[in-house]
Amino acid sequence: MPLCRIPGPDGRPEYAFYHSGKVCPLRLVMDTAPSEAELFGLRASGLPDPDTVAAEHWSPAPEVLLPPVPTPEKVICIGLNYRDHAIETNSPIPSEPVVFSKFSTAVIGHGQAIQLPSISQKVDYEAELVVVIGREGRDIPVADAMQHVYGYTCGHDVSARDWQKGRPGGQWLLGKTFDTFAPLGPCVVTTEELPDPSNVRVQMELNGEVVQDSTTAQLIFDIPTTIAHLSKFVTLKPGDVIFTGTPPGVGDAKDPPVYLRPGDRCSVIVDGIGTLTNTCQ
Amino acid sequence: MPLCRIPGPDGRPEYAFYHSGKVCPLRLVMDTAPSEAELFGLRASGLPDPDTVAAEHWSPAPEVLLPPVPTPEKVICIGLNYRDHAIETNSPIPSEPVVFSKFSTAVIGHGQAIQLPSISQKVDYEAELVVVIGREGRDIPVADAMQHVYGYTCGHDVSARDWQKGRPGGQWLLGKTFDTFAPLGPCVVTTEELPDPSNVRVQMELNGEVVQDSTTAQLIFDIPTTIAHLSKFVTLKPGDVIFTGTPPGVGDAKDPPVYLRPGDRCSVIVDGIGTLTNTCQ
Repeated sequence: MPLCRIPGPDGRPEYAFYHSGKVCPLRLVMDTAPSEAELFGLRASGLPDPDTVAAEHWSPAPEVLLPPVPTPEKVICIGLNYRDHAIETNSPIPSEPVVFSKFSTAVIGHGQAIQLPSISQKVDYEAELVVVIGREGRDIPVADAMQHVYGYTCGHDVSARDWQKGRPGGQWLLGKTFDTFAPLGPCVVTTEELPDPSNVRVQMELNGEVVQDSTTAQLIFDIPTTIAHLSKFVTLKPGDVIFTGTPPGVGDAKDPPVYLRPGDRCSVIVDGIGTLTNTCQ
Repeated sequence: MPLCRIPGPDGRPEYAFYHSGKVCPLRLVMDTAPSEAELFGLRASGLPDPDTVAAEHWSPAPEVLLPPVPTPEKVICIGLNYRDHAIETNSPIPSEPVVFSKFSTAVIGHGQAIQLPSISQKVDYEAELVVVIGREGRDIPVADAMQHVYGYTCGHDVSARDWQKGRPGGQWLLGKTFDTFAPLGPCVVTTEELPDPSNVRVQMELNGEVVQDSTTAQLIFDIPTTIAHLSKFVTLKPGDVIFTGTPPGVGDAKDPPVYLRPGDRCSVIVDGIGTLTNTCQ
């Protein structure tokens, strides 16, 4: 059962089952609800069977959710990982994963606002499937990589193109990590619910119009390859998230280019996970 | 009084005053020692006067210290920030700060080993002054920037040149963020103890030989300018650290180049802070 994160009655965040627009806080169905730190290590087997949850424990989901993975130690992003997107940005097909990052201060949840910075005029959208790590590992073989995945969520890799590119040093970080530039949600689905992430449809709807539409079958570096590669460098930890790259159709590659404006409504739709919607302001 | 972080008697990390090779755990001189999260918000005024600490509370510092700032949410790094270093790497003098990052999994303390990865043959040293943020802020004016600084520590921006440069996408992240590639320490000194960071000597000793030797007067972007710039993008938080850049003399720029080998002993010496020593293995 997908999990989301919501404000609890005491104002502190809590995890809840998330299904068909309804939520059931874990504290209602567990003697001791897992802490944020424990959750991704517990895996689905540590949670009660949501099918046994009495109807009275379900209530309508709040319009604004908290990010399902709070303050990840690592927000890792793979660039140019869809063949067609590399082509549309006039970039060579990478021979190895292109890796950059965001800071956790960029993470927001479903329904929270993307703040368009006054110092950028070229903020662009990027719909992505995001991997949530569930088990610590270093030097992980490709064959074992999926055992380190807790689950998946939708991610929006908001990108200020005028700070990502054409700047001294050529580092993408600042253009990618403005506060609110990493929406995640609405929920995390486990690997039990989404056992095969290798052909999952990923779309972006901008104000209701589909502007990106592809599947993870188009990934140049698939999820196990990406995890194995990253773990040659860093210890992956529970709660780390990996943005896997974006399909073609970004606004910067359109003619004329399309950039986000106040009031724009962005929805990342990943089949089997849900819809992550954030409005710009 | 400088603070360091050491393993406590119950195995859990604790903060201690650090002076002349001796330590005094804060728990011995405070009713309730501050937590890691609280410390950088407390500032020095919240701590007892170390001059009043009885002699019996001091003991020799352990040979291995924990990183004084544990698991920073942000490890921000400024590249090419010493004019001479930009020139030695054949890079243009940047017109604005070049910003990249490391993940917190790279952070180690004084005396802990730098693990040379088998997949790199070009691991290089970089001595740096590191700023520790003490007060949250966004869009911080240059004139207010120093009010957001808790203090300073020594940092070693270990860099695998063969992963930093010449790779698809041109992002430095992977070459900079191997596990153990961000030694910090031995201690944090507060802004009271180091009120003017604008002309502080920064050196690297490699196996006892001085290979980098400059002062922060050579910084292209000084600390207030850097903090103000970064805060246009991200909310800075207590415990975030900023590597301010490295002086000339890196191994990669030597002829022939010099790279780190197992057994090499690297000491970052920053006047007014101390010496951060780590051995490669």
